[in-house]
Amino acid sequence: MHIVELISKKRDGGTFSEEELRWLVEQYTRGNIPDYQVSAWLMAVYLRGMDARETSALTLAMAHSGETLHIDTILSPVVDKHSTGGVGDKVTLAVAPLVAACGVAVGKMSGRGLGHTGGTIDKLESIQGLRTDLSRDQFVRILKQHHIVLAGQSGDLAPADGKMYALRDVTGTVGSIPLIAASIMSKKLAIGASHLLLDVKLGSGAFMKTIEQARELATIMVEIGRMAARYVVAAITTMEQPLGRAIGNALEVAEAIAILRGEGPADAAELCYHEAAELLVMTGKAANTEEAEAAVARAIHSGAALNKLAEVVAAQGGDARQIEQPALLPRAPVQSMLLAPRGGYIAGIAAEKMGIASMHLGAGRFKKSDEIDHRTGLLLQAKVGDHVQAGQPLLEIHARDQAEAAAIEQDLLACYTWSDTAIQAGPLIYDTIRP
Amino acid sequence: MHIVELISKKRDGGTFSEEELRWLVEQYTRGNIPDYQVSAWLMAVYLRGMDARETSALTLAMAHSGETLHIDTILSPVVDKHSTGGVGDKVTLAVAPLVAACGVAVGKMSGRGLGHTGGTIDKLESIQGLRTDLSRDQFVRILKQHHIVLAGQSGDLAPADGKMYALRDVTGTVGSIPLIAASIMSKKLAIGASHLLLDVKLGSGAFMKTIEQARELATIMVEIGRMAARYVVAAITTMEQPLGRAIGNALEVAEAIAILRGEGPADAAELCYHEAAELLVMTGKAANTEEAEAAVARAIHSGAALNKLAEVVAAQGGDARQIEQPALLPRAPVQSMLLAPRGGYIAGIAAEKMGIASMHLGAGRFKKSDEIDHRTGLLLQAKVGDHVQAGQPLLEIHARDQAEAAAIEQDLLACYTWSDTAIQAGPLIYDTIRP
Repeated sequence: MHIVELISKKRDGGTFSEEELRWLVEQYTRGNIPDYQVSAWLMAVYLRGMDARETSALTLAMAHSGETLHIDTILSPVVDKHSTGGVGDKVTLAVAPLVAACGVAVGKMSGRGLGHTGGTIDKLESIQGLRTDLSRDQFVRILKQHHIVLAGQSGDLAPADGKMYALRDVTGTVGSIPLIAASIMSKKLAIGASHLLLDVKLGSGAFMKTIEQARELATIMVEIGRMAARYVVAAITTMEQPLGRAIGNALEVAEAIAILRGEGPADAAELCYHEAAELLVMTGKAANTEEAEAAVARAIHSGAALNKLAEVVAAQGGDARQIEQPALLPRAPVQSMLLAPRGGYIAGIAAEKMGIASMHLGAGRFKKSDEIDHRTGLLLQAKVGDHVQAGQPLLEIHARDQAEAAAIEQDLLACYTWSDTAIQAGPLIYDTIRP
Repeated sequence: MHIVELISKKRDGGTFSEEELRWLVEQYTRGNIPDYQVSAWLMAVYLRGMDARETSALTLAMAHSGETLHIDTILSPVVDKHSTGGVGDKVTLAVAPLVAACGVAVGKMSGRGLGHTGGTIDKLESIQGLRTDLSRDQFVRILKQHHIVLAGQSGDLAPADGKMYALRDVTGTVGSIPLIAASIMSKKLAIGASHLLLDVKLGSGAFMKTIEQARELATIMVEIGRMAARYVVAAITTMEQPLGRAIGNALEVAEAIAILRGEGPADAAELCYHEAAELLVMTGKAANTEEAEAAVARAIHSGAALNKLAEVVAAQGGDARQIEQPALLPRAPVQSMLLAPRGGYIAGIAAEKMGIASMHLGAGRFKKSDEIDHRTGLLLQAKVGDHVQAGQPLLEIHARDQAEAAAIEQDLLACYTWSDTAIQAGPLIYDTIRP
């Protein structure tokens, strides 16, 4: 086999065999194929596409390129949940303890945030003392003992994906649906949960901008799960405006706590309860959606879900008092309220632009080496469809100083579109793809 | 400007500005853009194409990436001639002295052969003592004094092309018409002849397999010439079967000498006389084709053309006696005659396969570092359309030993297709593209 033949095959619209993809991933991971050949291959894949069988074979090859955890051999069922990334997306922080409180184990490894979308690991690290860089043994021990663990991703998991993603990032080949699917699913298969719920974000603040793209990505990932004998469900959910009210790490932890108390903003809370219920049905813990929703409601109202979050925080070395009293979470020194420049109905809040504005406050990373300030961010005071009067609160800026807060005000105001007539926000969940 | 933006632009079907292409070529030549980004860019260009303005801008940027010769400031007119490469293509060896004998200066730099097609420089080096690695000063001095020089290509000419070609070679991006055109024309513009005749080979033995491809390549190169204020004509000529009878370095020199004596095989001789006449018309040395053909015939019959070849050979340190007495050219120790396995009309002689067979004799390079044996090769005894009886001579193998000759016999026989009814070879010249 020769890499130039594989490049030429896809360039000319051909279809790879399983063996060819396994060979390419193995040789690339071992350093036997140089980046300059793989980048030409990636561009050919980007422009010519890959079918479900090819994408699945690539994913499996990447999943087996390094260590594999097989957490389903420790506990079963054990669930995992992944979001393709959105602004204000704290769903994992709430869903994981909610599901664990309902008796379904959750073993999750998450990445850090880069760009306008945040990462679960960064959010968790807002909590004093909490460690996410767990060893394999620590991960397994906490999962066994508490039926929940929320760790950072190990470098030994799917190293081919790490290497290939770094190359895609600098060669204009990130936005290929088969490559995105293989990247996400290879890590998930290497971890080895028995059930996986995918949240495919759709809208101006998400990577997927059209329902067709989102459905294509969701469908191929469910299909990969089917071929790898994993139970995968993908929900396509809105990212037209930021989810909930909080954007920024500690602010989002506080909002997740509110959701677990039954006090969160309607959209974020509804999505968390929905995804938790979906996981209970998927794993057979609940016979149907009604039963699952009832179990979720009980876990919220009994305090069991919030206790589960406090339990995992403590197990990972974090200060559980910050979960019980969110006022103890780190807080930015400056809070500055942005007022509505006009009256009317809010017709749109540009999620991506708002995510970028919060990065300027220190809440996100422009490049991998950037340090995050866990305290900073934004608190929306009104959402799409709400009516506000001119001069009413629109958005609270949590900043390190007044200058940084003032510097982004115009960018933030530019995120809003207005209407004089009543507006209704679009659906929260567009579609759910099941095997 | 950022390379990822340029990659993404072409990936999405965009059009580059002159400035963008100049920037890319400059930065790549200086080593500021890594190969792994340029290879993704090359694949995007391969699959999305480039229009004439982009191709022309890329070509000019590459032409100016290193030293430029401007030979048209030494003598004018001064012509150059380039073939896209074929099997048995000794046209340059005959056309250059023929045109120079008619009073038009020829300044040519050629590459070496790689793969199934030979290179003019390798063929010339069959001649004892002849040097092709001329310094700039030597090149200029010989051109001024003799109005003809046939040199190897300097590494300082269009270094961006050298670097990019090496990358294309290992990333499946060789066969892109805009990239082929830019590669050829950048070297030609860096040399700077006033008039350039391109011989675009078409057929099973050439890189261009269809008349549409050949016409596209020819047209874009003529267009680049127009934009760069060079007079470029492209002839599309056949490479369905080997050209002439000789394949191999010294054998082709001998055939070129025969052509200059008016004794060459019909197809090769006709093409040489045609191209020489075209150059005389292009440069205004002849008023029309009839006048040009008469001048060419005079140069042949007077011996002036052959004398010109002997003159340039001597000027470049070669043994001119080998031109006057071709029997002095190096000769392989073994000559073995392949006989026709059946009677009939020869319907086809697969040029590429025959070129590869001659490489196995040592006449060509599989990889750049291979040494060439100038003595070996093949002499066709019959061509397409000829009728032969079973057992009559088909092909003479010139080999280093009997074993090497015997080893390729089956491959050589597999090059032939036969017909029981009369067959006529296709046209020699399909089309000529003029500005």
